[in-house]
Amino acid sequence: MRVLSGIQPTGRFHWGNYFGAIQQYIALQDEDEAYYFIANLHALTTIRDKEHLSQLTYDAALDLLALGLDPARAILFVQSDVPEVSELCWLLMTGTPMGLLERCHAYKDKKAKGMAADAGLFTYPVLMAADILAYDADVVPVGEDQVQHIEVCRDLAGSFNHKFGEVFTMPKPQLLDGSAKVPGLDGEKMSKSYDNTLEVFEELGPQKKKIMRIASDSRPMEDSKEPEGDVLYQLYSLVATDAEREEMAAMYRKGGFGYGDVKKSIVAAANQYFGAARESRQDWESRPDDVRDVLADGAKKARAKAGEVLHRAQEACGLKLS
Amino acid sequence: MRVLSGIQPTGRFHWGNYFGAIQQYIALQDEDEAYYFIANLHALTTIRDKEHLSQLTYDAALDLLALGLDPARAILFVQSDVPEVSELCWLLMTGTPMGLLERCHAYKDKKAKGMAADAGLFTYPVLMAADILAYDADVVPVGEDQVQHIEVCRDLAGSFNHKFGEVFTMPKPQLLDGSAKVPGLDGEKMSKSYDNTLEVFEELGPQKKKIMRIASDSRPMEDSKEPEGDVLYQLYSLVATDAEREEMAAMYRKGGFGYGDVKKSIVAAANQYFGAARESRQDWESRPDDVRDVLADGAKKARAKAGEVLHRAQEACGLKLS
Repeated sequence: MRVLSGIQPTGRFHWGNYFGAIQQYIALQDEDEAYYFIANLHALTTIRDKEHLSQLTYDAALDLLALGLDPARAILFVQSDVPEVSELCWLLMTGTPMGLLERCHAYKDKKAKGMAADAGLFTYPVLMAADILAYDADVVPVGEDQVQHIEVCRDLAGSFNHKFGEVFTMPKPQLLDGSAKVPGLDGEKMSKSYDNTLEVFEELGPQKKKIMRIASDSRPMEDSKEPEGDVLYQLYSLVATDAEREEMAAMYRKGGFGYGDVKKSIVAAANQYFGAARESRQDWESRPDDVRDVLADGAKKARAKAGEVLHRAQEACGLKLS
Repeated sequence: MRVLSGIQPTGRFHWGNYFGAIQQYIALQDEDEAYYFIANLHALTTIRDKEHLSQLTYDAALDLLALGLDPARAILFVQSDVPEVSELCWLLMTGTPMGLLERCHAYKDKKAKGMAADAGLFTYPVLMAADILAYDADVVPVGEDQVQHIEVCRDLAGSFNHKFGEVFTMPKPQLLDGSAKVPGLDGEKMSKSYDNTLEVFEELGPQKKKIMRIASDSRPMEDSKEPEGDVLYQLYSLVATDAEREEMAAMYRKGGFGYGDVKKSIVAAANQYFGAARESRQDWESRPDDVRDVLADGAKKARAKAGEVLHRAQEACGLKLS
């Protein structure tokens, strides 16, 4: 089984990114083959600043390596290092009905809001299809908002195969486990656009301040409280051990504790939980050449696979002279 | 000065293609540098048959070489052999306003006719822009119907340069000389879609039959006739020498001739005009490896240039790690 995940380098990863997706992606590296790419070509549709994009791309690589993506078990590369994907994108584009793209929600939503959309956003699902098909991916773990794009990919692959023969492997979406819903500092879903995030590799001091400032309810300390609906308890649950979590739940139900102590526990558990990753990140950070080597090696492997698929596709539609 | 022309391999070239465009393209090979590519990626938007596309692409190469495109003076290559163009296409796509493409007439016309358009047709001008910008082309000879696409190219190059620095060379359109208007067998503009064409490398027998069947007017032989408006005279003018043409014009004005003789003169003059090209074509046809070598060598040179431009563009927008 071949798994593929693309990760947008649109900002430093926060807990929502990590628990909602990245952690699950990385767990898949023990499958037969796992491909992870940093989607800088997709990011170009929103980031129009050279230094920023280049830095975010590099940071994403560092973060993923620190969080346990193992280059010995998985292939990590930067999207734009594989020209074959752009080539495949055009091949697919020529068979993409306009209606298919017009129905895609990212474009539709933006248009509905009266915002100016560009052709990059509009044709994004075609590039995404190329990303997936280029590696004969069987499984693509995605959030619910991306299921539609996998359907588009399957449509395009199906109609290409129908027209030109069995060229592409049909990918299946694998829904990410949404049970780890991550609340933001304000209790809403954690999201960069709500400005309510805790970054995975944030400096400890500022992160502690953010946590200590989370609004908590004002019921008397001695009251018994139900842990499940509480933001602090939810955040704690993500980073605590099972034993710690149960102990905390018991404390909530018993009552007679202060939220300040809960917040301190979150800080401590988070430091514990991400401690090894922080160290690993510092280590990778001190070896930039090794990071580049990982990416270069990943690109080489990815290109070998994508080259094979592209050749098949070009051959099938008559781009190679017979 | 660097000149670029893309030639669609959508069928065997007819006199309209030759006198209206190809002859003029080839004349430009004496400029500093001339790039000619066979646009098989564009053709994919209409030709969905492997053997057909591959054969037309090869035939286009043979035809161009036979018609005088000289690999020692110009760079001839197949579009899909230069991956850099597809890569550049996506970079430009992310900055292409939807409105710009919605206004392009090829798409607009098709939509107005209620025909199903695909994303290939819609984004065609972006690929065309990549084709032009990839080689730092200064001048692009085009027919009037393509001037709009050059404008789109300039828009995209301008806004990329504005955003990311001076990356792209601004190309200028050079209008093809339309004085050589080529009438078809029925007097309408010669066009494959009107089924009124004379192919440049058609078998002599069938071509003669087509010419002999052209409808001519029924005025008495002895009447004086004005040559300019006459289809037969116009066709003859394309392939006759200056002296022959003047002689024919004098004969028209004097009257007392049969159109059958004019038709025979067209056949003879065409054989004379394209005789060397026919021989050259047979020669190239007998050396398929040499044709492939020309294309391979052309692709190598084209890639060297396109690689340089792509690198500049990728660097400028942050796709290269700093």
